[in-house]
Amino acid sequence: MKLTLQEIAKLIDATLSGDSSKEISGINTLIDADSNQISYAVSKKYKESLIDSGAGAVIVDKKLIKHCTTNTLLVENVYLAYSILTHKFKQQQNINHLQAVSMRIKAYNNVTIAPGCIIGKNVTIGENTSIGSNCVIEDDVIIGINSIIESNVTIQKGCQVGKKCVISSGAIIGSEGFGNARDKNGQWHSIAHLGSVFIGDDVSIGANTTIDRGSIANTEIHSGVKIDNLVHIAHNVIIGRDTAIAAKTGIAGTTVIGKRCMIGGMVGIVGHLTIADDVIVNATSTVNRNITKPGIYTGFVPLMLHSEWKKVGLWITKLDKIATLLKIKLKNIK
Amino acid sequence: MKLTLQEIAKLIDATLSGDSSKEISGINTLIDADSNQISYAVSKKYKESLIDSGAGAVIVDKKLIKHCTTNTLLVENVYLAYSILTHKFKQQQNINHLQAVSMRIKAYNNVTIAPGCIIGKNVTIGENTSIGSNCVIEDDVIIGINSIIESNVTIQKGCQVGKKCVISSGAIIGSEGFGNARDKNGQWHSIAHLGSVFIGDDVSIGANTTIDRGSIANTEIHSGVKIDNLVHIAHNVIIGRDTAIAAKTGIAGTTVIGKRCMIGGMVGIVGHLTIADDVIVNATSTVNRNITKPGIYTGFVPLMLHSEWKKVGLWITKLDKIATLLKIKLKNIK
Amino acid sequence: MKLTLQEIAKLIDATLSGDSSKEISGINTLIDADSNQISYAVSKKYKESLIDSGAGAVIVDKKLIKHCTTNTLLVENVYLAYSILTHKFKQQQNINHLQAVSMRIKAYNNVTIAPGCIIGKNVTIGENTSIGSNCVIEDDVIIGINSIIESNVTIQKGCQVGKKCVISSGAIIGSEGFGNARDKNGQWHSIAHLGSVFIGDDVSIGANTTIDRGSIANTEIHSGVKIDNLVHIAHNVIIGRDTAIAAKTGIAGTTVIGKRCMIGGMVGIVGHLTIADDVIVNATSTVNRNITKPGIYTGFVPLMLHSEWKKVGLWITKLDKIATLLKIKLKNIK
Repeated sequence: MKLTLQEIAKLIDATLSGDSSKEISGINTLIDADSNQISYAVSKKYKESLIDSGAGAVIVDKKLIKHCTTNTLLVENVYLAYSILTHKFKQQQNINHLQAVSMRIKAYNNVTIAPGCIIGKNVTIGENTSIGSNCVIEDDVIIGINSIIESNVTIQKGCQVGKKCVISSGAIIGSEGFGNARDKNGQWHSIAHLGSVFIGDDVSIGANTTIDRGSIANTEIHSGVKIDNLVHIAHNVIIGRDTAIAAKTGIAGTTVIGKRCMIGGMVGIVGHLTIADDVIVNATSTVNRNITKPGIYTGFVPLMLHSEWKKVGLWITKLDKIATLLKIKLKNIK
Repeated sequence: MKLTLQEIAKLIDATLSGDSSKEISGINTLIDADSNQISYAVSKKYKESLIDSGAGAVIVDKKLIKHCTTNTLLVENVYLAYSILTHKFKQQQNINHLQAVSMRIKAYNNVTIAPGCIIGKNVTIGENTSIGSNCVIEDDVIIGINSIIESNVTIQKGCQVGKKCVISSGAIIGSEGFGNARDKNGQWHSIAHLGSVFIGDDVSIGANTTIDRGSIANTEIHSGVKIDNLVHIAHNVIIGRDTAIAAKTGIAGTTVIGKRCMIGGMVGIVGHLTIADDVIVNATSTVNRNITKPGIYTGFVPLMLHSEWKKVGLWITKLDKIATLLKIKLKNIK
Repeated sequence: MKLTLQEIAKLIDATLSGDSSKEISGINTLIDADSNQISYAVSKKYKESLIDSGAGAVIVDKKLIKHCTTNTLLVENVYLAYSILTHKFKQQQNINHLQAVSMRIKAYNNVTIAPGCIIGKNVTIGENTSIGSNCVIEDDVIIGINSIIESNVTIQKGCQVGKKCVISSGAIIGSEGFGNARDKNGQWHSIAHLGSVFIGDDVSIGANTTIDRGSIANTEIHSGVKIDNLVHIAHNVIIGRDTAIAAKTGIAGTTVIGKRCMIGGMVGIVGHLTIADDVIVNATSTVNRNITKPGIYTGFVPLMLHSEWKKVGLWITKLDKIATLLKIKLKNIK
């Protein structure tokens, strides 16, 4: 897919400054974009990246236009414009490519495919790997040798799974990330996710776990990672080698987790965080900040009789007022 | 399905007062039932509705029988009687109707159905809509134009999906609600759910998300709503236009959420609540009360080193006793 | 599968004391193992069981070897050795046994199997039971009479489902448990789970719920239990009769829950706990300790305006320091 800047300007309702016939073949970040790609900047935080960007064009609003050094597309709502453009560059799975008969697989020796599987074009499955019943493997998926894909698994377009992996039943690899731009009427416009999911070697993924594809770059699950059931891993998350994640945990977008971490069950990790190597987080905690040092971390309310909790719960919500009443200041108790 | 009141009385072990030959063709709420339908009242809270009800008959216990103005079925455990009756009026999916070959679809132009799909009777799929591999679409489902149903999705009997919707892999639309009546031996008797799921236009539903059908009325997801992965939406929930719900959140039964709300990831919202428009709830919070005003709401324990949390956790459970010791009263710190 | 102790010693890199030609046909706990089985002890907690064990051989490290009364296999990392051995005794589903045509079922009268189902060898399905579309039922599964297995369900090798059960769409029964042994390099080695899942009569399992198989014994869901959507039940959990569990709850490994309990939604229950009969746990609570008495239990932070929570949250993390400052001691407020 190629679009001229003139075509893009029309599509996203932008004022174009620069070469209207310039052809753009993709979207990338300010840092990684080359001269055939377009990028965008949503806040002043990206000023330096904007100045240094090698992108062929950038989408900006009036706050940032003065820092542009290339072709510019001036819009009111940059993220909304970006969301519209993503759909143009998204390579959707063409469901006509999917076939119940799996004759097109570049299969090596001893690949076993159970009944009911639906397989796309240009799929590569390594030696000794088995695909369980009723799986859907979309176009361009690569699965390494000695892996086990259990039944009812969905691996979406272009995702990569390494060697000696186990993907349990019901897991969804490569679902669209949850990203939506809001317009001035409060309506949401989905971002098409152009990245994929990359899974290293010796990884296990639990039953009914979901791993979203990245927005531009990939979501990455590094080698040796063990993930339990019903875990959610959002777009652009990176999980370092040999980290283990127990059931029902959720990791929001763009968070990076270090190596050899142990994340307990039902932990909520908010987005855009960095977690150091060798961190342990106990079950049901909320990780609401970066963790820069190895250690064991926890945060939840211990279980009480409901009759006790009813009294205690009220006081929890008044803690700052109690401190004021008692004239206790944070600086005194650091 | 029609049953006489005599047949119903026998089925639920009730004492009938009124016209034993009267035919009943359905169950409805006290407010909405017409004279061909039966209703029920479980507590004195429903006294006024009982008096005003247009139902052809009502199931009550001895506390409420004096307020009945129509045919009555007197039982010991109203909810248990109701649970038994629901199964009579439930239209189960007849699995003999399901066919691997999808020739019976009332399909318009350019509908694409991938291999492995199983489709029921009387299914309507709008123009330009695609159904991914290995989906199950049960009888009487209606899907609007320009929608994408990804692979391995299940849409159960009678559910409706609007235009320009995206339903991601593994999602289950129209599962039975979780409602059970308890008998005097502590055993549970399931309520058959007679409602359905109604999904508006421009809605997206994430991977492995589940949306239960309503008990009598429908569960409703209004237009423009965006729902992430592994979210649970219980029976009779209503989600207002353009609300966005991040991954792993759970919404318990009969809760009504307003328009343009933003609900973070892994939020737990208890049942029978009302949330106003334009409410933001941060990730991992518990919504344990109505929210009547727009605003940003939060409630969780911040992450600590486990060694700190061990000390702090104990004090949390003693907060009311500390207040007593310090002679602090709630009224002094309001 | 039979292995001599010599073969096992080589496999797990152990020093063998005893009868090298002795044949071993399985793995079991110290208490339950017979003379044809091997067992293992990971800590001094198991000293008495080790002395009393009837196992044909035991895997131990140097701390425990002096308490052994049978053939011993001395290793550095007992759990790692055990993890390696489990894979030898695991009976994997042979996916070549799975067939789209379900002619081999020992079916009784009136069994209905919808299109798209894939069924293994030696599967028993009771009278009047129906299997929905696109289900996968692996080898040796037994399903009782009058049960409903909805579409897209996966029941893995050897699991048992009782009479009058309902298993909702997307549920995964018998997924591998999440158990991994860590080596000295911090890498994980999966434990193959040799147990199964046993589900009693009148049980309902919600949509996209996952129930893991046991490590050696079975995971057990007793009769009358009702489980909602997106619940996770880990290996070796036992849930007592007539207990109800609401959506999104997670129960970690080896926890035993009593009879007639009511567990709210999104509750996190940590592993190796015992919960008494007739316990009620409110939604979103963390159960971080045994519950020995019936009652209602709760633990979460009530919802606040975010502006309030920001102040309160900080004080939560300083509670022990406030207590120190105020010279309040726990013993004074018990």
